[in-house]
Amino acid sequence: MSKQDVCDWKASHSRYSSSRGRAFFYVSYTGSSADGSALGSGPRGRRFNSGLPDMNYSRLFIPTLREIPQDAVIASHRLMFRAGLLRKLANGLFAYLPLGLRSFRKVERIIRQEMDAIGALELKPTVVVPGELWKESGRWDSMGESMLRVKNRLDNDFVVSPTAEEVFTAIVRDELSSYRQLPIALYQINNKFRDEIRPRYGVMRGREFTMKDAYSWHADDKSLDDTYQAMGRAYRRIFKRCGLSVIPVKADSGAMGGSGSEEFMVENDVGDNTLILCKKCDYAANVEKASCAPDFTLNEAADTKAIEKIDTPNVKTIDELCAFLQTEPKTFIKTLIYRAVNIELDLSNAPGCGKLERRKPSQEAQAVYNEAFFAVAIRGDLDVNEIKLAAVLKASEVSLASDTDVVRLTNAPVGFAGPAGLETLPLVIDHTVSAMFDAVTGALEKDKHYRHAAYGRDFKEWMLEDIRTVKAGDKCPLCKDELYVKMGNELGHIFKLGYKYTRSMKVSFLDENGKSQIPTMGCYGIGVDRTLASVIEEHHDDTGIIFPASIAPYHVIIVPVKYDGAVRESADRLALELTEAGIEVLLDDRNERPGVKFNDADLIGIPYRVIIGDKGLAKEIPQVEIKHRREKENTAIDLDKAAAELAKKIREELALLDS
Amino acid sequence: MSKQDVCDWKASHSRYSSSRGRAFFYVSYTGSSADGSALGSGPRGRRFNSGLPDMNYSRLFIPTLREIPQDAVIASHRLMFRAGLLRKLANGLFAYLPLGLRSFRKVERIIRQEMDAIGALELKPTVVVPGELWKESGRWDSMGESMLRVKNRLDNDFVVSPTAEEVFTAIVRDELSSYRQLPIALYQINNKFRDEIRPRYGVMRGREFTMKDAYSWHADDKSLDDTYQAMGRAYRRIFKRCGLSVIPVKADSGAMGGSGSEEFMVENDVGDNTLILCKKCDYAANVEKASCAPDFTLNEAADTKAIEKIDTPNVKTIDELCAFLQTEPKTFIKTLIYRAVNIELDLSNAPGCGKLERRKPSQEAQAVYNEAFFAVAIRGDLDVNEIKLAAVLKASEVSLASDTDVVRLTNAPVGFAGPAGLETLPLVIDHTVSAMFDAVTGALEKDKHYRHAAYGRDFKEWMLEDIRTVKAGDKCPLCKDELYVKMGNELGHIFKLGYKYTRSMKVSFLDENGKSQIPTMGCYGIGVDRTLASVIEEHHDDTGIIFPASIAPYHVIIVPVKYDGAVRESADRLALELTEAGIEVLLDDRNERPGVKFNDADLIGIPYRVIIGDKGLAKEIPQVEIKHRREKENTAIDLDKAAAELAKKIREELALLDS
Repeated sequence: MSKQDVCDWKASHSRYSSSRGRAFFYVSYTGSSADGSALGSGPRGRRFNSGLPDMNYSRLFIPTLREIPQDAVIASHRLMFRAGLLRKLANGLFAYLPLGLRSFRKVERIIRQEMDAIGALELKPTVVVPGELWKESGRWDSMGESMLRVKNRLDNDFVVSPTAEEVFTAIVRDELSSYRQLPIALYQINNKFRDEIRPRYGVMRGREFTMKDAYSWHADDKSLDDTYQAMGRAYRRIFKRCGLSVIPVKADSGAMGGSGSEEFMVENDVGDNTLILCKKCDYAANVEKASCAPDFTLNEAADTKAIEKIDTPNVKTIDELCAFLQTEPKTFIKTLIYRAVNIELDLSNAPGCGKLERRKPSQEAQAVYNEAFFAVAIRGDLDVNEIKLAAVLKASEVSLASDTDVVRLTNAPVGFAGPAGLETLPLVIDHTVSAMFDAVTGALEKDKHYRHAAYGRDFKEWMLEDIRTVKAGDKCPLCKDELYVKMGNELGHIFKLGYKYTRSMKVSFLDENGKSQIPTMGCYGIGVDRTLASVIEEHHDDTGIIFPASIAPYHVIIVPVKYDGAVRESADRLALELTEAGIEVLLDDRNERPGVKFNDADLIGIPYRVIIGDKGLAKEIPQVEIKHRREKENTAIDLDKAAAELAKKIREELALLDS
Repeated sequence: MSKQDVCDWKASHSRYSSSRGRAFFYVSYTGSSADGSALGSGPRGRRFNSGLPDMNYSRLFIPTLREIPQDAVIASHRLMFRAGLLRKLANGLFAYLPLGLRSFRKVERIIRQEMDAIGALELKPTVVVPGELWKESGRWDSMGESMLRVKNRLDNDFVVSPTAEEVFTAIVRDELSSYRQLPIALYQINNKFRDEIRPRYGVMRGREFTMKDAYSWHADDKSLDDTYQAMGRAYRRIFKRCGLSVIPVKADSGAMGGSGSEEFMVENDVGDNTLILCKKCDYAANVEKASCAPDFTLNEAADTKAIEKIDTPNVKTIDELCAFLQTEPKTFIKTLIYRAVNIELDLSNAPGCGKLERRKPSQEAQAVYNEAFFAVAIRGDLDVNEIKLAAVLKASEVSLASDTDVVRLTNAPVGFAGPAGLETLPLVIDHTVSAMFDAVTGALEKDKHYRHAAYGRDFKEWMLEDIRTVKAGDKCPLCKDELYVKMGNELGHIFKLGYKYTRSMKVSFLDENGKSQIPTMGCYGIGVDRTLASVIEEHHDDTGIIFPASIAPYHVIIVPVKYDGAVRESADRLALELTEAGIEVLLDDRNERPGVKFNDADLIGIPYRVIIGDKGLAKEIPQVEIKHRREKENTAIDLDKAAAELAKKIREELALLDS
């Protein structure tokens, strides 16, 4: 329980103790019974006279399940359904039930507190937003089909927000005039929609979800970097407070534009992202952007034999070539023909590109080439990383050229491309190739290869870049130790966007000299649902969830063996004492066998369980049993001391998470 | 400030005082300056080291305007824009800025507290929901074009929720098995979308808005009534706490189905609803459902002359007829032909309806007639109330028949319909006509009317009902005093829905005898944005908003005449004292002329203003000036006593609102 929670309760409590005599408890804390009889007298005993449920377990709408939902592959999906946190409305659309919503709100609150703490201001725009703004930024066309577009009855275009750079930029544009107003950092915690083709893993990849998205505007790069760093620190605190182990990784900023970004990942076997991690140092990168230490030396140059064309009948693949020449893929130069689109790079001097023309999609936009082709050469045992390739070409996307294009551009059948003698295409060479002086490669002719091909002598690059895909076993670029691979899910992402939106949407301010300037921009997102699901992924066992105290829907569950007589009285009294100590209590007042109650308590993952039975109460000094969800055995404790002891333990756990 | 707020602050405070040394304040309360220098030492003086705004006025993004937005007709719209609470994204779509969001969240919190207090449980479904559910209930077809329908890339139908009976019913359907689980009351506070053709008046009639919508399910009518009554009481408390004067009125439940409903209205000149109110008693009704005491007596029956057909050449309207016969509209029977659709009423014995057939749209649905026509007779000085007419016919909609239909059905030109001799249509007679024994009416023949027509002798009803539109000057049905008319806006609405959704969506439970039963249902909505706008409508003057303390974004604004030197020190200290007393403070640290600051303080409507200047501080006992937003004159008070005095006044105002 965070201090915020303690205090929320106190607010309720103080309200309750006032003369108003009305309760506003969210938390079940009266020892009142399911059948409506009051606990003692006085205002605390006030009953809901509406015939509606009160807040005991029996009235809380916690439909736990024994069966595992068929489509639930991962633990969080299984457990959120089984524990009654969530129900499915349709593929990728979910409803939080009361217990799930309590935990969801705690994640939200931690995020909000940390955003406020660094001075970001919360706004609340709509979820359905005008398509016009997306046309201004150019993303109406570039966002693809995952963005849900709607036409209303007046034929206006709308977007069900997948993100909100445009909306926030439009708001700031209208109000910004002077450098004195900068920096500005704004955020929302609101519904988003992305039309996933295959939504799965529960809320880990849903169609509608809740995102905290923040945006900032700055007069200069230094100011942007300050906020970017502050956001990074806030993100680390947020995940720490949620009890999550995150891996901050360097990431490609993809379709979001701009440079400088960091992703906050959690390990997950079915994660969307491949992470490259170092066994020794803290290097961590998304495979999309990972680099590695060279596994070649550039000073191997030597007198090699002259390049020689050889017959390689019916040999097309590298494996076939290896077999044919009885050698290894490392000795080959693999040459692939790529098609790139929306290229910002200047191609005016690039081979074969003389006739291409750059166009400007709009007045403010960067001039780009619609399409161009490139030959890409890499050592035969490696793969081209298309995201790194797109980045060096400043292209929005790259993909392998069609066979027809390959034949047309290389004047050779598919499978015989090579760098030597290739003059029709700009040649992009990976660093590995620059260390190859006795290589085999395609000879741009059917059934012919070269051997003894040497970089610098037989061919030269148009661009020399790092475009290899890093894989397990490669060397760390920082410490040269071995790299390994994990799958992960992205919980948060911080970006330096630069001028992408402020330029296209014409945002400006007057600087100290009265000169009009364009602000630079950052954006910062966290998936709220995914964060909650990840907490459960990291904290569960075979019998259910093990919530960290900061995210738990309640801190303590009181399980009376039978909710009746002296047991009931003690359960009610303990619930009251705990609530007065600021602890959130769930009281299992159901008429169920103890085993059923214990199983449910384990399943829903309340950190502490108190068992109250006749036997313990009958002792000279009445006792109850307490147990942390992680522990196997109960510990007997004097009933009188239970509340204080539990409150202390929970405060300690919370303090540790918050530290 | 509500006690909740006090406590929220205390939570922040206690967090702050802890060893963590990190602040989570939403509220500006440090006396820290805009230029970043710290107030005193210790953790309280911690600065945001990110270069981001802190929480003083200068950093809060409160873009006040002197100009009135062109399209802003009503006070709340004008003031929410001018005070920087809101900005427009597109027609009917708005973004709350930080100040507006603070007030919005306070309205939300009051609603949430009162819902929780009566045991309703909060859920969080999605906003975009499967169209399939709306097809099950039948509303996919009946909702009309204001419902925003979307197809995603897989061609699935979705709805951007305008309301959520279907979603909540589907959730309950899956979990409900036994009467022991009932009653269940669930709610959400979430975004809604209604595609208004002409959105206007700011958030008073926007396209996307936030609604609290609650739904309940019951084993019997008694239980439904208990919850319905509890909701009604909760609604009264909610509006009271917001400082709103609401008029609870009986309302027709319209397209929502079912019977038994109450609307919570606020008076508004441009309101959507016409309210009929009694000058003496508390009778209040929406004109759609209002009735009045009879303004006729049924015992006037006397020997009148025999009915007589007269020539009325070129006379078509009642006015022309009055002129022609030199008499009053009261002596005429106006007869109108209506077309009704989806009629549940049994028409098997109705004149002219012999050939109509009832169909069942689905197995569970009520059988209905697609279309039928009716003749409706009413006293000539009155208007037919189409909503009351639709209710008595149990039709989904009624509208005047086309001229073609009138001619076809009455065998006479338009303008000559009358009840006497009309045998082709079921005749619905308003009560007023049953007291007419010497009336003029159409003779179902071109240029002919009857005079001396008598009810009971010359024509008889198929149905005799109250279908008149009540208007100002009519008599109260309760106390017979005079009725008057006000325009109003609906803030909340509570309904007894009955079985409409539970039947069509096949919800059932086993009763005490193990027999399958269908639960009955209620629904209960409040518009959050509209409630906030209505608070401003009710509480403002020529210079700006006058927020009730419960909804004010801050309780006190401190205005240093010049934020410098001793004045600054005192302002900082007072801000600190107030915050420690649990009061929310806005500190105007801007380098602006006092007049600008005073105008802004008036505009944004903070309940209490404190002015600190050199003159007051120079006195033997240093003084500041305080003023409630409603007061004209400042009151001098000792600086040392200001915090305690202000805290006391605010607590009193809050206690009054909450009482």
